[in-house]
Amino acid sequence: MNEELREYLLQIRPLEAVSMEMARKRWSQVAKPLNSLGVLENDIVKMAGIMETSRVELDKRALVILCSDNGIVEEGVTQTGREVTALVAENMTKGESCVCIMADRAGVEVFPVDIGVARDLVSGVRHPLITRKTAYGTKNFHREPAMKREEAVQSIETGIRLVKELAEAGYHLIATGEMGIGNTTTSSAVASLLLKKAPEVLTGRGAGLNDEGLRRKLGVIKKAVDTYGPACRDTIDVLACVGGFDLAGLTGVFLGGAIYRIPVLVDGFISAAAALAADRIYPGCRNYMLASHVSAEPAGRLLLDQLELAPLIQAGMCLGEGTGAVSAIPLLDMAVSVYTKMSSFEEIKIEAYKPMGGGS
Amino acid sequence: MNEELREYLLQIRPLEAVSMEMARKRWSQVAKPLNSLGVLENDIVKMAGIMETSRVELDKRALVILCSDNGIVEEGVTQTGREVTALVAENMTKGESCVCIMADRAGVEVFPVDIGVARDLVSGVRHPLITRKTAYGTKNFHREPAMKREEAVQSIETGIRLVKELAEAGYHLIATGEMGIGNTTTSSAVASLLLKKAPEVLTGRGAGLNDEGLRRKLGVIKKAVDTYGPACRDTIDVLACVGGFDLAGLTGVFLGGAIYRIPVLVDGFISAAAALAADRIYPGCRNYMLASHVSAEPAGRLLLDQLELAPLIQAGMCLGEGTGAVSAIPLLDMAVSVYTKMSSFEEIKIEAYKPMGGGS
Repeated sequence: MNEELREYLLQIRPLEAVSMEMARKRWSQVAKPLNSLGVLENDIVKMAGIMETSRVELDKRALVILCSDNGIVEEGVTQTGREVTALVAENMTKGESCVCIMADRAGVEVFPVDIGVARDLVSGVRHPLITRKTAYGTKNFHREPAMKREEAVQSIETGIRLVKELAEAGYHLIATGEMGIGNTTTSSAVASLLLKKAPEVLTGRGAGLNDEGLRRKLGVIKKAVDTYGPACRDTIDVLACVGGFDLAGLTGVFLGGAIYRIPVLVDGFISAAAALAADRIYPGCRNYMLASHVSAEPAGRLLLDQLELAPLIQAGMCLGEGTGAVSAIPLLDMAVSVYTKMSSFEEIKIEAYKPMGGGS
Repeated sequence: MNEELREYLLQIRPLEAVSMEMARKRWSQVAKPLNSLGVLENDIVKMAGIMETSRVELDKRALVILCSDNGIVEEGVTQTGREVTALVAENMTKGESCVCIMADRAGVEVFPVDIGVARDLVSGVRHPLITRKTAYGTKNFHREPAMKREEAVQSIETGIRLVKELAEAGYHLIATGEMGIGNTTTSSAVASLLLKKAPEVLTGRGAGLNDEGLRRKLGVIKKAVDTYGPACRDTIDVLACVGGFDLAGLTGVFLGGAIYRIPVLVDGFISAAAALAADRIYPGCRNYMLASHVSAEPAGRLLLDQLELAPLIQAGMCLGEGTGAVSAIPLLDMAVSVYTKMSSFEEIKIEAYKPMGGGS
């Protein structure tokens, strides 16, 4: 690991126990059966620990979408041409992608980031593009490593710095998103190497691949796992060999959450692969993450289980872009409202409802 | 079945196929991989069929909370005293319950209904109480049937009429909620008789019962199932023998959704038991329902599976009041926004993304 990245990680401190205890106490006083909001209650306790205050606020929230191209697309592992990455990324800057529409509705600011799209992009005015290119797309990892180790580190640091800037701008919560044709292939390869599980278990049809395409995709991933696996010394090597700039950048965003103490929402499969990478680079980084949904991609649940993160939504979504992460935000909003505004048992004079909650 | 109820049910017509086909077509044109919003896409197609238009709108939405007392509480099946039903119901009218806070945040109007609380209630001004008492609480079904058959029918008709009034007021969507100490006991008994499954499989701790309490609760339910089961001729008999006014009223709300063509959101265990009752009274009533979440109560998933309804949220919630149903509404809102506002493939000029969706 290089010196700069090491310096960043040295800043990480554990979850703050006093605020978590105060949050737990607050939940126990709220006039409702204890734990009856399930995962949402735990999420808020966790956020208190991250934010170092039991006054959990989510007023300002950002969706960071890392966009980049993947050389592996040359191998025919996708049904969609590589040029679509740039087109969708440009549409995002105009507010014209699915996740932008959902983020509007949920009150989430969108930050599309070009961390490695294969061509220069023209930004719209709705969500101006943030250009942080590591390079113009990765190499085809069927032939050579996707990127140099330094490029992986640079991408991770880009992610960390994005969170630093959002923290300075006062954001309370970051949702993760991505756009990059080919990135279910890179994510399957990364997940396979990190989890030491066969690619078959982890590889799905992405956005609608047919049988022939799925076979080809699986073949490519298997070969890559066999080729690079033995040579990878650490997680950064894995990201460099078979990852993408989006994955490495998201890894940095998760690390940034831990460094700058902002909870970061995991989206679907790709985001979860990056989350696992971050937790491998800094064990315990998972404590600064919240799960949003279980992706319909087969590896989604597996990665969350590995990270011991409990999701809120399970609706068979697999759109990417950060749509799952954004979907979770209104649920967290409602939980914060109950946590903040709901009367205590004392206030509403329901003693009997209190002890372990009443068996209604 | 009495004549009036039969008249109501005769008005139900099937889902409207043309609007559903148009909704499906619209989804296929939206510039994103097909089915990538999973259950949300199906929910909107279904709502098109219910509303008889592919222009699905959810601007006005109501939460109907049926509150009532259950005589079975005398048997010590709850940890909470029966007086809590009235207290929480009154708090709801002041906007001071968990679900009210969540509904505020999600933009949902709350309608607390006294369909059978054991005393007269004093309404607050925030959500004025709607008084439609069938009676002052049910009887203790450990000793005698919970209510007369006519009372079950009356409660069902109350639910139907509530939906009629909400339809006339222009509401597009109804979320279901309830408040009634003892109503996980009544729901387990009803579910056991309707599903012909042993109470052990269906009975949980409600809002925090201990081992001793759970044993007592289970004993009471088992005896009731054995006693009343053979004598119940139909679903209305089941509701009358071991149900509650809230359950029967919710059954009416679901039937009302089918009659007046408004989608009705199932909440958790209790609401799902009523949903099943409605679907047994009018087979196909499930077509007018949407699932919201999987309750942490053991029977939650079982009832949804029986109804073939796919939930959106799985977060270990078990608060009741309609909190699960309300939680689903922001997700539906986001889906409707994408459905309505998102560009088509033609508009954003991404041909390649189209055929089966691209394998990103």
